[in-house]
Amino acid sequence: MNRKGLAILMRTKMRPLSPPATLNKLNQMEISPQESKPGVNSASDASVGTRREFEHVKEYMHSAISMNKTEILDATLSDFSEGYVGLSDESRRKLLLSLAREYDLDRMQVQELVKQYLGLELPAGGSAQDSGNEEELSLSAFYRIERNLRHALKPNYEILFERLNKHPGGLKFLSIIRADILSILGNENFASLRALDSYLKEKLTMWLSPANLELHNITWDDPASLLEKIVAYEAVHPISSLLDLKRRLGVGRRCFGYLHPAIPGEPLIFIEVALMKNVAETIQEVLWDDPPIPENEATCALFYSISSTQPGLSGINLGKFLIKRVIDVVKKDMPNICMFATLSPIPGYMQWLLSKLASAERSVSTFKENLLNPEEEKAILDASMEFNSGKSAMEVMQYLLTSKPYKWSKSPELISVLRTSLLRLCARYLLQEKKRGKALDSVANFHLQNGAMIGRLNWMADRSEKGLTQSGGIMVNYIYRVENIEENAQSYYSKGQIPASSEVSVFLKDH
Amino acid sequence: MNRKGLAILMRTKMRPLSPPATLNKLNQMEISPQESKPGVNSASDASVGTRREFEHVKEYMHSAISMNKTEILDATLSDFSEGYVGLSDESRRKLLLSLAREYDLDRMQVQELVKQYLGLELPAGGSAQDSGNEEELSLSAFYRIERNLRHALKPNYEILFERLNKHPGGLKFLSIIRADILSILGNENFASLRALDSYLKEKLTMWLSPANLELHNITWDDPASLLEKIVAYEAVHPISSLLDLKRRLGVGRRCFGYLHPAIPGEPLIFIEVALMKNVAETIQEVLWDDPPIPENEATCALFYSISSTQPGLSGINLGKFLIKRVIDVVKKDMPNICMFATLSPIPGYMQWLLSKLASAERSVSTFKENLLNPEEEKAILDASMEFNSGKSAMEVMQYLLTSKPYKWSKSPELISVLRTSLLRLCARYLLQEKKRGKALDSVANFHLQNGAMIGRLNWMADRSEKGLTQSGGIMVNYIYRVENIEENAQSYYSKGQIPASSEVSVFLKDH
Repeated sequence: MNRKGLAILMRTKMRPLSPPATLNKLNQMEISPQESKPGVNSASDASVGTRREFEHVKEYMHSAISMNKTEILDATLSDFSEGYVGLSDESRRKLLLSLAREYDLDRMQVQELVKQYLGLELPAGGSAQDSGNEEELSLSAFYRIERNLRHALKPNYEILFERLNKHPGGLKFLSIIRADILSILGNENFASLRALDSYLKEKLTMWLSPANLELHNITWDDPASLLEKIVAYEAVHPISSLLDLKRRLGVGRRCFGYLHPAIPGEPLIFIEVALMKNVAETIQEVLWDDPPIPENEATCALFYSISSTQPGLSGINLGKFLIKRVIDVVKKDMPNICMFATLSPIPGYMQWLLSKLASAERSVSTFKENLLNPEEEKAILDASMEFNSGKSAMEVMQYLLTSKPYKWSKSPELISVLRTSLLRLCARYLLQEKKRGKALDSVANFHLQNGAMIGRLNWMADRSEKGLTQSGGIMVNYIYRVENIEENAQSYYSKGQIPASSEVSVFLKDH
Repeated sequence: MNRKGLAILMRTKMRPLSPPATLNKLNQMEISPQESKPGVNSASDASVGTRREFEHVKEYMHSAISMNKTEILDATLSDFSEGYVGLSDESRRKLLLSLAREYDLDRMQVQELVKQYLGLELPAGGSAQDSGNEEELSLSAFYRIERNLRHALKPNYEILFERLNKHPGGLKFLSIIRADILSILGNENFASLRALDSYLKEKLTMWLSPANLELHNITWDDPASLLEKIVAYEAVHPISSLLDLKRRLGVGRRCFGYLHPAIPGEPLIFIEVALMKNVAETIQEVLWDDPPIPENEATCALFYSISSTQPGLSGINLGKFLIKRVIDVVKKDMPNICMFATLSPIPGYMQWLLSKLASAERSVSTFKENLLNPEEEKAILDASMEFNSGKSAMEVMQYLLTSKPYKWSKSPELISVLRTSLLRLCARYLLQEKKRGKALDSVANFHLQNGAMIGRLNWMADRSEKGLTQSGGIMVNYIYRVENIEENAQSYYSKGQIPASSEVSVFLKDH
């Protein structure tokens, strides 16, 4: 899953560059909205003082990379982290660019090794299949230079990353640095910084491998300092009050988070689960309308929200492992539960549909694709008589779906007229539209690669403006059937097969 | 510290290739001497059955590397591990060689990238110091190929290592594989297998970083299955009985081990500590002669034994971090303790001295180095009158030190005659003999790089044949003074300075 995709999925709140005031606060994990107002340390207050501060931090950075392994190193790493979070946005930008450029790899050395490498001769055949001893000998020069090349290709800033990772608070600090990098790259494209980011991302992915993460069942008995994080980072369905939070952690509900030992008291990602009799169709019934049922009557665990807390870990797929672990834990605890499902957004549906409609209109060919079937066309034109002024059904549809504030969603007649075609086209979008063999929709791709199937499309399941803009208000249940997870993941991975319930597939047979 | 050095330091018992019978036993961590007899599955019982078995395991290995990420993978990794430990030594050798050769990197691809790389032109100056945007642009091709090159330089067997590391029991299994590799490389030199070993060692070093290890205070309350390991792996001063073990874990004694979460119940390395009033001079007083003192009277913690349990982790310096952690823990628990010292062997002393003596004799130049001063020469010649038959003092010395079973060590007169010169030359060996700026003696180098100083030479401190062969029976106390550790480590690292007590330095001023 690419970075953008995950960001959409998680609806991550990307905190802007502005830092918590000191590292002490950072270590206490205090993040209050007041402290994270953007621009507090913006470039506008640049002064001689700031300039000197920047030079100090740059010096700390240099020492942290170049100094030998002693206790002084720890102090230097602390000086650097503390100094960094005190810098203005502009100073951080400058510092990160200098890290990317001046602490890159030694290109001369790489070129030297590369020349040596080309001077070597491969033994006959070029592979080491049936190596005799002479071949072993002739290959040993390859092994040597390949090893040196591997080392020469490590940028100097790797030392800083490695050292910070081992330093108390360093992993958290690295994720702050990466959030800053992503924020800079969102505005400007620096090849050097992009290379640094991709390197740092690989490192973080390794350090945050599931083997190093602890699954924690978050409850009302957890410290307020941890629960505060849940409130702050819940990105999908904001938590309105303490009571709301308590309900999400109470009877019939579960909340699981992934914690890393080096970042205590702050889950990196968490998932909220509702225990239900049936798979929910709308988010309202989960959050407000239906009271929780006795847990022993539940047969379905519904994942209704998944939020990542660290913008700096964007693109590192922790959600996949979290879902698998949670399924295992719930299965063990509550054998009655045989159905695991999500209630998910379809973030790319409208964008895809509108571009299809636009290109169909532009096309003058007689072979232009008609996205609607005759009955749908007729129904749309009949219902829009008073304002369609000679437009085609597709034009009317485009007009309705783009004219804010989406009056159609308030009109029972238009809702019922659009329903069939929007659901049918949504099924087509989810099941048939692909990019490099994978589902075009990022959330769909996320769940399909985890082994889910497409279970049901829910009409008018998210009537918020965001829901209407993204997916015409449709939400989807992805279903995780324990006995099919591996098989589904495998056939999606190897053949791009997208499994769907008959309820959804039937939409495609009509047309 | 190089592999050989650590092996000497740890006196690691390298288990031979022969395997525990099944992986189940492996997971239960059962290692009894009966099961590890060498040669049980030796090549001599090769048969059609063995051949087929080998092919099966090879197939598992291939699947484990090439298959997609699904649950089937776990089963395959288990099949492979279980199959592997069932193979004969000869089949393991064949399999590991095929892994090293057939799952190496794609040399054609590397050459292709390397050619592309040489085709690129570095921006003026060759460094990215004052990069403008054009320079960023021209460097982006470099970043791209460097990244691809980094990936292309990863051998295919890395996938197997990575997957095993995440697999339950896999880390332990990797250490078994590496022990086998080292055992093969001890007999035959395969460049391909050596390259694989160096790659695996780097991976293991990373996975076993101190951040991932847990310090455990081993006591008599620990499970017998863990204590059994201590008995089995204590390599320096073998544990003779349950009573002996109980004493080493009792009052006035401590034992600390490093455990990895993936290898539970089995410390990777452990250190034994005696709490004493003064730094011990001989190992006898520590192990048998002196009863433990009340702990609140202790001012010195003596590290009298350090043993690693995994031959497959040879060359990965866990001891360094263990000593540092133990000092921290003891300091916190018992503020009275202000002295941390070892009682250590000097494994390279005799080898160095005998080669010096031999080359002095061979030399015909008038400038030949006389290792002995006139008084020492006279004392040696006087004491050896009856058997020296016209030999020089150095020749007599060489004769005494090499003639087993070291009669001189039983003769009070010869002991007293050799004492001055052997102690003086030992001080010279430890303080002045270097290799690439570091102490020539591997154990000395180990402790000096950790920040210790050379505290005292102890005459006749190890009268065992091994002790006499290695160091003429001399042992040394390395002293860790808390307030100097960092400073010492730093000046040893940067300038090769070897700190020593005046008691030891004085030996060098006489001559």
